[in-house]
Amino acid sequence: MSPEDEGEYFVHWRWETCEMFIDRCFQDYIWIIMIDSSGIFWDNDSLAALLALELQADLLVLLSDVEGLYSAPPGEPHSKIIHTYIKERHQGEITFGDKSRVGRGGMTAKVKAAVYAASAGTPVVIASGFATNSIVKVLQGERIGTLFHQDAHLWALPKEVGPREMAVSARECSRRLQSISSEDRRKILLDIADALEANEKLIRIENEADVAAAQQAGYEKSLISRLTLKPGKILSLSKSIRILADMEDPIGHVLKRTELADGLVLEKTSCPLGVVLIVFESRPDALVQIASLAVRSGNGLLLKGGKEAMRSNAILHKVITGAIPDTVGEKLIGLVTSRDEIPDLLKLDDVIDLVIPRGSNKLVAQIKESTKIPVLGHADGICHVYIDKSADMDMAKCIVLDAKIDYPAACNAMETLLIHKDLLNSEGLNDLVVELKGEGVTLYGGPRASIAFNIPRAHSFHHEYNSMACTVEIIDDVHAAIDHIQHYGSAHTDCIVAKDLEVAETFLCQVDSAAVFHNASTRFCDGARFGLGAEVGISTSRIHARGPVGVEGLLTTRWILRGSGQVVDGDKEVVYTHKNLPL
Amino acid sequence: MSPEDEGEYFVHWRWETCEMFIDRCFQDYIWIIMIDSSGIFWDNDSLAALLALELQADLLVLLSDVEGLYSAPPGEPHSKIIHTYIKERHQGEITFGDKSRVGRGGMTAKVKAAVYAASAGTPVVIASGFATNSIVKVLQGERIGTLFHQDAHLWALPKEVGPREMAVSARECSRRLQSISSEDRRKILLDIADALEANEKLIRIENEADVAAAQQAGYEKSLISRLTLKPGKILSLSKSIRILADMEDPIGHVLKRTELADGLVLEKTSCPLGVVLIVFESRPDALVQIASLAVRSGNGLLLKGGKEAMRSNAILHKVITGAIPDTVGEKLIGLVTSRDEIPDLLKLDDVIDLVIPRGSNKLVAQIKESTKIPVLGHADGICHVYIDKSADMDMAKCIVLDAKIDYPAACNAMETLLIHKDLLNSEGLNDLVVELKGEGVTLYGGPRASIAFNIPRAHSFHHEYNSMACTVEIIDDVHAAIDHIQHYGSAHTDCIVAKDLEVAETFLCQVDSAAVFHNASTRFCDGARFGLGAEVGISTSRIHARGPVGVEGLLTTRWILRGSGQVVDGDKEVVYTHKNLPL
Repeated sequence: MSPEDEGEYFVHWRWETCEMFIDRCFQDYIWIIMIDSSGIFWDNDSLAALLALELQADLLVLLSDVEGLYSAPPGEPHSKIIHTYIKERHQGEITFGDKSRVGRGGMTAKVKAAVYAASAGTPVVIASGFATNSIVKVLQGERIGTLFHQDAHLWALPKEVGPREMAVSARECSRRLQSISSEDRRKILLDIADALEANEKLIRIENEADVAAAQQAGYEKSLISRLTLKPGKILSLSKSIRILADMEDPIGHVLKRTELADGLVLEKTSCPLGVVLIVFESRPDALVQIASLAVRSGNGLLLKGGKEAMRSNAILHKVITGAIPDTVGEKLIGLVTSRDEIPDLLKLDDVIDLVIPRGSNKLVAQIKESTKIPVLGHADGICHVYIDKSADMDMAKCIVLDAKIDYPAACNAMETLLIHKDLLNSEGLNDLVVELKGEGVTLYGGPRASIAFNIPRAHSFHHEYNSMACTVEIIDDVHAAIDHIQHYGSAHTDCIVAKDLEVAETFLCQVDSAAVFHNASTRFCDGARFGLGAEVGISTSRIHARGPVGVEGLLTTRWILRGSGQVVDGDKEVVYTHKNLPL
Repeated sequence: MSPEDEGEYFVHWRWETCEMFIDRCFQDYIWIIMIDSSGIFWDNDSLAALLALELQADLLVLLSDVEGLYSAPPGEPHSKIIHTYIKERHQGEITFGDKSRVGRGGMTAKVKAAVYAASAGTPVVIASGFATNSIVKVLQGERIGTLFHQDAHLWALPKEVGPREMAVSARECSRRLQSISSEDRRKILLDIADALEANEKLIRIENEADVAAAQQAGYEKSLISRLTLKPGKILSLSKSIRILADMEDPIGHVLKRTELADGLVLEKTSCPLGVVLIVFESRPDALVQIASLAVRSGNGLLLKGGKEAMRSNAILHKVITGAIPDTVGEKLIGLVTSRDEIPDLLKLDDVIDLVIPRGSNKLVAQIKESTKIPVLGHADGICHVYIDKSADMDMAKCIVLDAKIDYPAACNAMETLLIHKDLLNSEGLNDLVVELKGEGVTLYGGPRASIAFNIPRAHSFHHEYNSMACTVEIIDDVHAAIDHIQHYGSAHTDCIVAKDLEVAETFLCQVDSAAVFHNASTRFCDGARFGLGAEVGISTSRIHARGPVGVEGLLTTRWILRGSGQVVDGDKEVVYTHKNLPL
């Protein structure tokens, strides 16, 4: 086995870019597969190792009845599969249990044989013989089983700090960040901005390498566009960090001040959440934005970026954390580069306070599905525009066109158009339909609209096109519109176009979405347009923060009580005043 | 089988009060057990049924290799064990798969035999033959397996509305509750207060029956005390509902008003969360408090009470929902009486917005562990008092004694006392220790304190006694105190006693707990003492609400935007003003 790229590149290449692996190497491989499911003849393992070395095999796959080597007997809490065996680290740590059906001897013998073969030059993977297609998956570079390689200690030892340790360190640093002065926090942001500008060249070189690799791998254009740091981008990022630095400090705000009793004063003050995990697809600029928001709000941060932006993220992370002083600690912001998968990170609900996914709806939905950590984001954006019979149809046309066409892939774009039945066959409505079609919007109809406009039937009212298409339906009145939206919507942004103010107020009062609009395009639902400054995300959850969320989404509160020796003592002597004091 | 109480009482009695079951009936039973693990000789099932009838057996237990009868093949999503088989309902619903090792025939034959035996008078339970002690558990009345009984259709058919349907109905009603006027919501609360008073006698009769049953069952005194509605309690509850009715309406408050652009005004307004699930141990007064808070805040509610308060909860629920007008709908508040267990309820994260557990730490911890619905509550209350070297030792003594003794079982009671090392051997500290011991507080020490005071070693610093005991440790300074609290505390309430204001501010700023106090007893951490009005709970989570939570913990916000036809259109023409407007 002779990969051109030694060391850690081999790891990334091996596990993460299987296409290259197959294209470049499949032909050159000789492999040996030993199946040892009985567990009785465990000499098979050492026999296999000897044979593999004799044949100078490129890879030895040992099949077991468990998924690979575990840190503790499989099934025990905290037992975790070890993806790369590093003798120096794992030798003492692993406890061999007897839960596996091959018994204690089975895995011990396999590890011994694997270490032997690997140290003599033949890499070994121990994988499950019961799972489907294990061998094919190993050969395709999938990250299954446990890899033994003579260079393994070089790849991982200095890097592999687990995400749990990273989260704990980030929290410690965030506490230090909170306790320094507001001016010192401001200075960190200015230093980060300076460091980004000073290292612009370096950042662009790494980003260009990512872009080139993505182009070579044939990724789609939109991904490459998001991945690319265009000329001037670094400058505009550093500029926005300087604006953030000059923003009012959000930490330590007194939100409420109450005198509980004589000489006993209670304050509710804002403070950081703690540790925030950002999972973002290949957008290196998101890393910079989020990191600066975290510093501004006093939070620790774990970053898990898309693999396509690996080099860009690494250099940006290095530049940013290099600007964080030792009094706070560069571990304030951790970049998760270990091969721990997102599901592993999402289990850390005891040390991570909030997850913010930045990426596709699918990513958000998957994250929401698989974690108990609160998630700030939205999986769906099924936004409605309802045109009431009282609508000014010129206004309706402008709003509907903007809501659909301004940026069809945005989460706040219109996906469903609801039309009051009295507007059928009106000139205004016909105009609107003609114009939508003229702009290239494909219309799908509900049961009534598909007949009225002779358009194909929509498969479901709960559908997000994210493209130049939308669903249309005829409904009886505002109450039917409200019911439709409650039933099929995603509680993101919904709009009524109406001149009748009573009808409009009914809609505004009863549609239970994060944002409800009257006579304005759904596209206004956005942190910047709402004047919130930096946007953390748009939340459709009902807890903590809802709709477009600014920096306050990264904050919580603490109650601070200052007394002079007061005790409760059965409330016998305390005279509660509960007087609101000025802030 | 001839239980004195027919029908549904049999069910409750059977599954829920196993002691009675054994005491009263165990001797009279004849039972037959057929083990059918091979699945080949499935005539065994009908043979068993015939034999059971022939012997006029009281119960037939059929053992299978799965837990019981499932609504779909076990392992499929949404497949659920059926606890009581009702022919009329389940016959068409159940799909028999072939995943079970006994094959398709096995379960079909068992159900057929069970229906046959049950309809002829011998109840049948199908349970797992692999699980430990299945037969003993069935005989002890545990709710395992699937029960077949000739009267099953009488017990469950009219009652069993699933919790999912209840949550959906509660949300619909809550939307109607939101859309009526504030005055009408106030009137509902007043009507509930009147109805409680008018039905006081009835409520007390049912409550007395619960109390009598609990006493007979030998429950501990504290449970019976919580269960009992003492004389005057109904009156004091109705009085507090009237106070709540006259409180400022929390719904529809405009929290922020911004002009985004000319004629485009954004408002952030308060609105109900949606549907709240309350899981409470046997405290019928909690039902009344929470139900009235839900009405006040416009939320739908699901109540799951302790089984010991079954009759009290049923009558209170009936009286309260009877006072809710049809314009809103009595399904606003659902009482979960079906035998669905709490874990089933906690899976409904798509229709329930918040869970509030009211009960033991264990209950809260279990709920937090097993749901993705946000939980408002606290599992631990490990509160610290740190006595700085600058403390006024008389004040320290008062605060420490109050924090520990005022109500030792409360979550805001002191569990750990940290003492600055310079105070060792001082008269003040010796006084304090003597007084604590004199009051009957058992002291456990950390490594340093156990030697200094000659007291037994505490097993762990992370320990909540909830009784007249506490941990004591000597530490170097305020920074060590902060580190200790971050490491071993539960982020509930922590206190510093100090004259040195700089040291105090360091503590107040750096201890990252929900409540941090200077020179005041930890016992002040309470919604009523904080002046929040009705208390929903005390939250140690960092998201949504923190510390003592009033009615605002049941609210979220919506963004309401009123325009006059504005569109985004690439932000080409919009001139954003982002002007704060008066509220």
